[in-house]
Amino acid sequence: MDSLPTPDDILAAAKRIAPYAVRTPLIEHPELGARAGGRVFLKLEMFQRTGSFKFRGACNRILLIPEADRARGVVAFSSGNHAQGVAAVAKLLGIPATIVMPADAPRAKIEGTRALGATIVNYDRVTEDREAIAGEIVARHGATLVRPFDDPGIVAGQGTAGLEIARDAAGFGVALDAVLAPCSGGGLVTGIALALSKVSPGTKVHSVEPIGYDGMRQSHDTGERIAAHAERLSIADALMAPMPGKVPFALAKLHLAGGLAVTDEALVRAVSFAFRRIKIVAEPGGAAAIAAVLSGVFDAKGKNVALVVSGGNADPETVMACCNEAPTP
Amino acid sequence: MDSLPTPDDILAAAKRIAPYAVRTPLIEHPELGARAGGRVFLKLEMFQRTGSFKFRGACNRILLIPEADRARGVVAFSSGNHAQGVAAVAKLLGIPATIVMPADAPRAKIEGTRALGATIVNYDRVTEDREAIAGEIVARHGATLVRPFDDPGIVAGQGTAGLEIARDAAGFGVALDAVLAPCSGGGLVTGIALALSKVSPGTKVHSVEPIGYDGMRQSHDTGERIAAHAERLSIADALMAPMPGKVPFALAKLHLAGGLAVTDEALVRAVSFAFRRIKIVAEPGGAAAIAAVLSGVFDAKGKNVALVVSGGNADPETVMACCNEAPTP
Repeated sequence: MDSLPTPDDILAAAKRIAPYAVRTPLIEHPELGARAGGRVFLKLEMFQRTGSFKFRGACNRILLIPEADRARGVVAFSSGNHAQGVAAVAKLLGIPATIVMPADAPRAKIEGTRALGATIVNYDRVTEDREAIAGEIVARHGATLVRPFDDPGIVAGQGTAGLEIARDAAGFGVALDAVLAPCSGGGLVTGIALALSKVSPGTKVHSVEPIGYDGMRQSHDTGERIAAHAERLSIADALMAPMPGKVPFALAKLHLAGGLAVTDEALVRAVSFAFRRIKIVAEPGGAAAIAAVLSGVFDAKGKNVALVVSGGNADPETVMACCNEAPTP
Repeated sequence: MDSLPTPDDILAAAKRIAPYAVRTPLIEHPELGARAGGRVFLKLEMFQRTGSFKFRGACNRILLIPEADRARGVVAFSSGNHAQGVAAVAKLLGIPATIVMPADAPRAKIEGTRALGATIVNYDRVTEDREAIAGEIVARHGATLVRPFDDPGIVAGQGTAGLEIARDAAGFGVALDAVLAPCSGGGLVTGIALALSKVSPGTKVHSVEPIGYDGMRQSHDTGERIAAHAERLSIADALMAPMPGKVPFALAKLHLAGGLAVTDEALVRAVSFAFRRIKIVAEPGGAAAIAAVLSGVFDAKGKNVALVVSGGNADPETVMACCNEAPTP
């Protein structure tokens, strides 16, 4: 396994990506707070470049590639948000990017990636191996593989969101009891947990996954890195990694307070609530932390809680379907 | 006419409403900036309580009602956003509220108002006079009429958004060349212009209206308070006042740099852009300033510009229709 990132790596990442990344806001949402019986804050990462937090990690990781190697390009495999993050960073730095994407990824994500000038290689989620396809491109062109989560540079980049949450909570005069973040491979939530272990050690960080893809929860509970057994696809296309990465899992053992899991029904309701009451576009995976609070899976009563809205790259049809399914979220 | 509010009234309003209002963020949007050839910031007022800036003015105005008169309640006429603002403030303060609303207002606005506990009186936009209906309720119950814009207390409340824009722009290290705000009766845009005349006098403030309802533009251009001649309804249900209020117009003569007008087509495109690229829910009227920049009606080239997104109370169907009409905004 790669060595683990440290809080200092996150501070360095924050400095490194500052010229490129958006400093996203933390807002208080009184209505969500009233429903939960506490104070609820939202870290709005769908305002990050490319519509998700993934830009942070990609930016930090690609800036760590030695100058001499950059011209040979970067390659990534991703269902969409990491793809766009890598493509956007490559474009800003003038580096060629190839992205291996499932053919059934949301249109908004495929089009977003293409619009950023990346070469897209489609694969079939069921019959083809994306890592093998990416590996071939690395071998052929000498490109650098930018992994979606199992890389200390990626995790350190995602952790910069945690530094910002801590700073902005202090601006509200609030000591955060908990932070909830959506989790797929675990780069975001463990990066945030690592950051807060240094700058806000009293804050408990929880992962939120769709049931059936709750590998982080199961791994955290058992102390072994294990895969969840999904019986069907989740509406949260961005959260379908069945198992946490090695780096994130090692960090989770040290810094994660616990793992939560939500139903697809709760995700649908959260997307509708995000649209109707928060006035944001959250993709189903991006709304997982909201779902955990709205559904009562996490009890925020009497607490100060920050929820990370990790991405907003949903097709309008998906959001509309959620709004129709949950008209009074 | 009522006396005009002063910048000091806005500072006092900011203090008065601080315990109740959301401090909404100003974010930079690099993609919009790149399209416009300048730096573009967004003041996200759809995060204000009730989903629009209207809470600010309603809160300030209602807090100015003498304690002894409050129990007799408040009454307002509004197509929806002012209605919700008044209803929310009344609920927070424990005051009864009656709202006179057109029967064809967006469902999101009618339901939002009802959910806040207000009594709703519907009227027909074409055949009935909302002011007469409200006047009758005032006469019968001794309730206080809370006007949507033609009131110094309302305008001072809306102006608090201008103070926040100036402070946050300074936080970005940016001197704003211009601020664009949607305009119906003119309370918001002239409140902001009044605030900036004191705290950021180099910033030019422009109103943005739908063509056909551009009474502020025509009044500003001619120096006479006149009504625009709409030939059909605008998609911007919140911006259909044909004429600026007396108080806003008097302030516009002193502090408004100019008036802009946009087509419904540009509003549709702006709502789609807001959803797809900004990841926010903007109602058509709320997206008017975005429309002015995207359509080129306002040239932001080489400038630092803040756009006020004034509200997000659109039905999902409306946003979906805009996204379908403008798939690549």
